[in-house]
Amino acid sequence: MTNRQKPPYYAVIFRSNRTDFDAGYAEMASRMEQQARQQPGFLGLASFRSPDGAGVTISYWESLDAIREWKQHPEHVTAQQLGKDKWYADYTVEIAKIESVYHFPAE
Amino acid sequence: MTNRQKPPYYAVIFRSNRTDFDAGYAEMASRMEQQARQQPGFLGLASFRSPDGAGVTISYWESLDAIREWKQHPEHVTAQQLGKDKWYADYTVEIAKIESVYHFPAE
Repeated sequence: MTNRQKPPYYAVIFRSNRTDFDAGYAEMASRMEQQARQQPGFLGLASFRSPDGAGVTISYWESLDAIREWKQHPEHVTAQQLGKDKWYADYTVEIAKIESVYHFPAE
Repeated sequence: MTNRQKPPYYAVIFRSNRTDFDAGYAEMASRMEQQARQQPGFLGLASFRSPDGAGVTISYWESLDAIREWKQHPEHVTAQQLGKDKWYADYTVEIAKIESVYHFPAE
């Protein structure tokens, strides 16, 4: 995230394992990140994936309403279904309230 | 995580950027993961790091008390100080309450 948001704020922790099916995945992932960044209440995003196919994306939001809006975005709904059908062997989505935060360095 | 914990439970989201100083880092990271797994209230851990030095470790806990206990563990306190002195250019620690969770596949 570019700024230091003060709690409380919210995170969606998306942990996943990919299938071996690659066609369309990178384009979808890039497109969804672009779309998320344009949503009201979006605060930031961090994404990592290991060579073994395990990965995590954490997106940060101002409110649960902002998360719900993004979840229901038509293009995102389509991507979620394609994800289940093609790209993800399994995943877990956790909705989290960030209660406190500590930065190093402090300033 | 190996099981499907029901919310609410807690997460520590540790996002960091490494320095170029590697000596002792891998040993510390491995040791701290082993120690965390033995703490009361530990639920699970997922860790990722990119070749560019950015990474995230998410640890899951039954309660805020369990998180506090681990934060104050003497060996962990030493590691935190070494981390600031040597291994991390910057980091952010967020304490999060997991309010809901969704698994795919559902069973």
